[in-house]
Amino acid sequence: MTAPLRVGLAGLGTVGRAVVHELLDNADALAARAGRRLELTRVVSRTPRPEVNLGGAPFDTDLGTLTADDTVDVIVETIAGEDADAALAAARGLFEAAIAAGRHVVTANKALIALHGNTLLPAAEQAGVRVGFEASVAGGIPILNALTQGLAANRIEWLAGIVNGTSNYILTAMTERRGDFDTALAEAQRLGYAEADPAFDIEGVDAAYKLAILAGLAFDVPFDFGSVHTEGIAGVDVEDIEYARELGYRIKHLGIASCSDAGVRARVHPCLVPEHALIAKVDGVMNAVQVSGHAVGSTLYLGPGAGGAPTASAIVADLVDIARRERPGRRELRAVQSGGAAMDALRSAHYLKIPAVDEPGVFAHVAEALSREGISIEGAIQRARAIRAGEGAQWVPIVILTNVVAEADVRRATEAIEALDGVSGAIRRIRVADFGGAA
Amino acid sequence: MTAPLRVGLAGLGTVGRAVVHELLDNADALAARAGRRLELTRVVSRTPRPEVNLGGAPFDTDLGTLTADDTVDVIVETIAGEDADAALAAARGLFEAAIAAGRHVVTANKALIALHGNTLLPAAEQAGVRVGFEASVAGGIPILNALTQGLAANRIEWLAGIVNGTSNYILTAMTERRGDFDTALAEAQRLGYAEADPAFDIEGVDAAYKLAILAGLAFDVPFDFGSVHTEGIAGVDVEDIEYARELGYRIKHLGIASCSDAGVRARVHPCLVPEHALIAKVDGVMNAVQVSGHAVGSTLYLGPGAGGAPTASAIVADLVDIARRERPGRRELRAVQSGGAAMDALRSAHYLKIPAVDEPGVFAHVAEALSREGISIEGAIQRARAIRAGEGAQWVPIVILTNVVAEADVRRATEAIEALDGVSGAIRRIRVADFGGAA
Repeated sequence: MTAPLRVGLAGLGTVGRAVVHELLDNADALAARAGRRLELTRVVSRTPRPEVNLGGAPFDTDLGTLTADDTVDVIVETIAGEDADAALAAARGLFEAAIAAGRHVVTANKALIALHGNTLLPAAEQAGVRVGFEASVAGGIPILNALTQGLAANRIEWLAGIVNGTSNYILTAMTERRGDFDTALAEAQRLGYAEADPAFDIEGVDAAYKLAILAGLAFDVPFDFGSVHTEGIAGVDVEDIEYARELGYRIKHLGIASCSDAGVRARVHPCLVPEHALIAKVDGVMNAVQVSGHAVGSTLYLGPGAGGAPTASAIVADLVDIARRERPGRRELRAVQSGGAAMDALRSAHYLKIPAVDEPGVFAHVAEALSREGISIEGAIQRARAIRAGEGAQWVPIVILTNVVAEADVRRATEAIEALDGVSGAIRRIRVADFGGAA
Repeated sequence: MTAPLRVGLAGLGTVGRAVVHELLDNADALAARAGRRLELTRVVSRTPRPEVNLGGAPFDTDLGTLTADDTVDVIVETIAGEDADAALAAARGLFEAAIAAGRHVVTANKALIALHGNTLLPAAEQAGVRVGFEASVAGGIPILNALTQGLAANRIEWLAGIVNGTSNYILTAMTERRGDFDTALAEAQRLGYAEADPAFDIEGVDAAYKLAILAGLAFDVPFDFGSVHTEGIAGVDVEDIEYARELGYRIKHLGIASCSDAGVRARVHPCLVPEHALIAKVDGVMNAVQVSGHAVGSTLYLGPGAGGAPTASAIVADLVDIARRERPGRRELRAVQSGGAAMDALRSAHYLKIPAVDEPGVFAHVAEALSREGISIEGAIQRARAIRAGEGAQWVPIVILTNVVAEADVRRATEAIEALDGVSGAIRRIRVADFGGAA
């Protein structure tokens, strides 16, 4: 294996700590993926956090030690702070120093890229310094990767996204609970989805930074935050949400960018979205970006848009990319048993359609046969309408939804049921896939 | 700009022709993206198609000419044919010859990768030959790119996808029109979504190839098509779909792969999916893959899973990637007017909530003011319940949905309406985002 990629980290807030956690806890798997180890060699934070395990990496409160340290190949910038302007200035200074020192940079800082990317990125390229900023837009969703690589064959015509989880959470809460804006905002703040000063999110500034980045990459133009038309969600009340629903729409806070002969247009504002559109169903703090390209048509990318672990997922993916490109290693396959977990052991809920005769007691016998295998009934349907079978008997299918059980158990139970008097023919069995409401 | 990447193409079926079209028609944009030109230098097809414009590239019916031609840097393999075994054997032979000749390979052939990828990919790596197969799974959705790069920081826990458009189309048609399987299949065949011999799709074999590829990349294990438990959709009837609906589910044909201590499990079969899950709403020929990683949580990727242009989108993206990695060039920014299309010119439908007094004639005056700006009313709500205003007058908001109009026109109209007798206060205006049912 080639030499490790040595990582220096600036910032130990939620995101910085999550990056440390991933680098230390997932080190072997990352090395197998990247073809080299990702080694945390220095950490800097304004505020010491002795409770965080840094895996032995030296700690300092002075940012300058990161760029001065020759054991650092790439600097991860996750500087946060109450004072946004000061944090941005510190991030910019660090980025410039990293370029001067020839260190690669990975950042989650959307303001930095949207406002200063036009000078920082070419300067980095000139210096042979790689820059990753996947984490700056839509958290863990690899949308920048999709735009710059996966969809590279396309002239992107437009994109539209829910890119601010706070605003989407508030609109979702207002829609679901028919409550007012202030109540929804207070709820979001209580749950940690909104800051004490929520202006940056609810006035659309955060979304506008992200849209400026998306538009720049999608249309191959400079980032232009100043030209993004920006409106927040404060002008939407619950009555609007109700009227919109009556008209067949949901209200979402969207960032929309398009490119035509007239130029690039980028705008962030509340929108009525047809209720059947998938993006209308993206609720809570989830983010989603829909992209339309001339060849591919319309594609959609959805996932968690914020939070420590999802943002760290994007940052570490950028690190893996830099590790691979710098010194290509060999991706290692794992010695995991393939096909090892036999279907018999698979556990899922089951839909069973049982061809049964409409006689007293049949349902009880079916329930008994299930019970013998430890299977309980979560739902059942037996319709009144009877189906006349050949001999004149009344056949009424019994439909049962079971609890989550092992495949082998449900197979034994269905064999026993098929052998019952009052049951004729094969049972239709379809497994239930439970996505746990994940998306 | 560095030297062009010279592309040889095998196959002039739907996909091959779409690749030719993209390479010729979008050449300048691709060159700007890739940092070098993508030049079509040779085309081979068993059947000559003189009607296809090849941009001057020499044509031959003999595959051997592709590997023998030193003006070819990368071979795009899109061999199709009635005889699937023969097409697979030809594709495999071409791939091996390409490796021997040191030519990179891009393919859309899922059977080739799922069945022979375990030997072909390491052989290619050994020979320094790059291989792209993004197009082999889920058409234009850059899902392989997401798994291998965007989500590279994650231990993937499971993934579940709708990866066969034919099966999804048939299930959607049965669900929406409450029709039987044979009718839905005939409809799919008439629309070109199903082959004359549909077995490959509806028995789940196509989905199993794709799932084997997804699982291999997600879990860093060899491709193992033989271990994929495979069931098709023929066992689902419209009665099952109805019962499932009553229980709160949709029936979808899913490929599901998971990795645990017990090993990798991969299975393709019909599933009941909770109706609120996003993947339950992926209808028609659309594909979608949901991926759960330990850090990022759950993400979802959706788009067109088949067809010439979407598949070409994935193939050409692989070409761009090879072009960039081989000889990194500079991505060129375009001289497009940014922010040039002023908001005044933006055209959209609008939601207007007008604070109006509940008196005869007010609605008519509103309609007149809209009409003067060429704006028509697509929908309107005026509720019976009145809101008592300060002076005891009855205020009832008039809610109007307009047709698609220019921002400037609707602004003039709202100013005129705000000045009307019987209207008091500011009009709430929210734009409608119409995704055209795209997704």
